[in-house]
Amino acid sequence: MGKLEKMLKAKIRSIPDYPKKGILFRDITPLLKSPKAFKECVDRLAAAFAKEKVDYVVGIEARGFIIGVAVAQVLGVGFVPIRKEGKLPYKKISKSYELEYGRATIEMHQDGVERGKRVVVIDDLLATGGTSQAAGELLESVGAKIAGFGFVVELKDLNGRKKLKGKKIVSLVKY
Amino acid sequence: MGKLEKMLKAKIRSIPDYPKKGILFRDITPLLKSPKAFKECVDRLAAAFAKEKVDYVVGIEARGFIIGVAVAQVLGVGFVPIRKEGKLPYKKISKSYELEYGRATIEMHQDGVERGKRVVVIDDLLATGGTSQAAGELLESVGAKIAGFGFVVELKDLNGRKKLKGKKIVSLVKY
Repeated sequence: MGKLEKMLKAKIRSIPDYPKKGILFRDITPLLKSPKAFKECVDRLAAAFAKEKVDYVVGIEARGFIIGVAVAQVLGVGFVPIRKEGKLPYKKISKSYELEYGRATIEMHQDGVERGKRVVVIDDLLATGGTSQAAGELLESVGAKIAGFGFVVELKDLNGRKKLKGKKIVSLVKY
Repeated sequence: MGKLEKMLKAKIRSIPDYPKKGILFRDITPLLKSPKAFKECVDRLAAAFAKEKVDYVVGIEARGFIIGVAVAQVLGVGFVPIRKEGKLPYKKISKSYELEYGRATIEMHQDGVERGKRVVVIDDLLATGGTSQAAGELLESVGAKIAGFGFVVELKDLNGRKKLKGKKIVSLVKY
């Protein structure tokens, strides 16, 4: 485990049985409270995509907003939100995907990303990869080019990388 | 209208009858997409609180996360989220408040802000002020000191300032 990963892990709180029994939730709120650790985290994600000529950072609601906008600021590019169903006010496109139980839908404004623009998709956590995969498909449906996916935390056993195969994937902390 | 306000207004989209008939919604997603306008907006909010010796920026879910974390980055301080009910994983405190129809509840982690720390509360929009007032009361209930409230947009006719009276209030764009 590298120095950065160790520093970040010290700021991630593990909460047993949340949101349901048997799940060990990784809570990044202590990391957000620490300007030093948060800056390291954001700088590292930004550095990983600095040479990718990214036009926008796309953040997935809601924790992906926090990490994503910070990365966009460091890269000096615009920020585009992907939201849960029913939250965006303008013309939008949607993508539904399977969850363990049931389905979820994410949405983006139709004019969120223009055809041919390069984006990096940021979320706090890579778990099964379902949400990230859906976000990637939503973006590609409007002609965006995916430069890659960036995460603070990756839960390796859930094999989310498999769903994003062929894409650049960066995660800072692995469990 | 100042130069900054004019620049920001050009990046705010007005959407009639959203979320319901008769409401003119102010959509900041075009502003988020413009790195120059967004940077101006964030720098101006940060500058307004730069001398307030703020320990944390508190952002209110979900658009307040986007603006708030960017301001926290510029100020070099930590970020603390206030979320809608049922979203935070750890021990938390809640505050309910009246809406036009019904009630809403916001929550913060018990250890979100320590007693005596100074915070600025950031949201995208000051409308009736109900959410901001509730956030302020939640913060004061754990002994935090409110250095002020910062907003991108203020809807003047809704008189939200009245609910936050005695506090420093900064808004960049007025309608």
